[in-house]
Amino acid sequence: MKAFSWPVRVYYEDTDSGGIVYHANYLKFFERARTEWLRGLGFEQDHLRQELRLLFVVRSIAVDYLRPALFNDLLSVVTELQPPRGASLLFDQRIEKESEGRPEILVRASVKVACLDAGTLRPRALPEAIKMEISNVG
Amino acid sequence: MKAFSWPVRVYYEDTDSGGIVYHANYLKFFERARTEWLRGLGFEQDHLRQELRLLFVVRSIAVDYLRPALFNDLLSVVTELQPPRGASLLFDQRIEKESEGRPEILVRASVKVACLDAGTLRPRALPEAIKMEISNVG
Amino acid sequence: MKAFSWPVRVYYEDTDSGGIVYHANYLKFFERARTEWLRGLGFEQDHLRQELRLLFVVRSIAVDYLRPALFNDLLSVVTELQPPRGASLLFDQRIEKESEGRPEILVRASVKVACLDAGTLRPRALPEAIKMEISNVG
Amino acid sequence: MKAFSWPVRVYYEDTDSGGIVYHANYLKFFERARTEWLRGLGFEQDHLRQELRLLFVVRSIAVDYLRPALFNDLLSVVTELQPPRGASLLFDQRIEKESEGRPEILVRASVKVACLDAGTLRPRALPEAIKMEISNVG
Repeated sequence: MKAFSWPVRVYYEDTDSGGIVYHANYLKFFERARTEWLRGLGFEQDHLRQELRLLFVVRSIAVDYLRPALFNDLLSVVTELQPPRGASLLFDQRIEKESEGRPEILVRASVKVACLDAGTLRPRALPEAIKMEISNVG
Repeated sequence: MKAFSWPVRVYYEDTDSGGIVYHANYLKFFERARTEWLRGLGFEQDHLRQELRLLFVVRSIAVDYLRPALFNDLLSVVTELQPPRGASLLFDQRIEKESEGRPEILVRASVKVACLDAGTLRPRALPEAIKMEISNVG
Repeated sequence: MKAFSWPVRVYYEDTDSGGIVYHANYLKFFERARTEWLRGLGFEQDHLRQELRLLFVVRSIAVDYLRPALFNDLLSVVTELQPPRGASLLFDQRIEKESEGRPEILVRASVKVACLDAGTLRPRALPEAIKMEISNVG
Repeated sequence: MKAFSWPVRVYYEDTDSGGIVYHANYLKFFERARTEWLRGLGFEQDHLRQELRLLFVVRSIAVDYLRPALFNDLLSVVTELQPPRGASLLFDQRIEKESEGRPEILVRASVKVACLDAGTLRPRALPEAIKMEISNVG
């Protein structure tokens, strides 16, 4: 599975008075990147929801904060999907920053996302069209 | 109309790397206070929406930032309703902090809130029950 | 003064359970655009702060919410600076969305930003270099 | 170690257009509760930082999302400290909601918080005063 990279700029809204990005806000960055990864495969989540009644929700997330990101940093969120099983998608994600020409990892996360029916909120198998797109990228 | 006061504690989530509360976050404090004001009159917004199909949305807001609030500050959000006209509620709100035994005003806002039908999103007259409660407090 | 346009994508983080962008979050979009406008002129705010001890803070903001933005919308934040006077910058900003090939205005804001000394937090005149850049774009 | 419980009300700011609390925002609730737990022991973080040059940062967090919280819910954040080792504090936290007279667990988290020197940002042993307070509650 190839890694997908998405740029994120750190604005004031993302930081806290410790002078660094507030720890909960990295989860927003991770989700922006998963959204863009899905869009890159041709799937828009508003359409998925309205037409296929498909909703993605985070089931669990484990985050390691290694080094802080700062105001005005330009970060890359790198996203890799593990081979899909059942109704869940398992992502390995990391946030990197260029440091002396090399990417330095600031935050790592392992994220489990479930596929639900938007009406009943019950688990649903991933639609075949999405499964196929995912396999093609692999 | 009597003023309604609601306490808000400043946590890390509210601050930015300038060392002060991020300017957009005061709008959250103002809305918490309006929600609690309405709850104090006996109206829960989830019930209003599900049972009366009533939704409140902010139409306009004007904010003056006078002095910054800091991490760990304990603030008071003071809320006063102007005499209601039509489908809109006009609130004067301010955020205060105790300073040498006196309230010091940090932020002032004037907020216009519209009453909508939750289905059509069209303006609706304020329900009589709410109008009466508001008049009684006056 | 020429208008500066900056794209903003609406993610889940920006929305609320009313199904639309949470009203306070547009203020984040406006600030991102002001930051990028300044960067486009060649000024990075972390450098301004560390090297010139210069800090920008919002003094007042007036926002009109005309139409709601939705999850997954791609918006444009259009920013125009009014002719600068003293230590303050006055911005006219609006958030637009393409609708049938035409920009539709969703939110309008008038924002007053003050230039402060990052140490004393007292008003400071805008540095000449910034003033000149601003005049050149005019 | 006795459990510490802190109430959190869900406002619009906390929800997303899926109709539930946005997953990153539970991390804010968890931090509010840790802050209040520490305050309950007599320690204010702004004082700790300014006088003892002590800063707490989240090193890692693992969150399980079991059931969604909704707009207007009144939640309890339950916080338990594991026996402290070295410069880190390990918290077990959970978010509960009353359901038919019984607490139902919505979210669980395991949070590792490091104690740093506020100047150098290097790990520091927990001050004796805090250690003693923690042991006394145990």
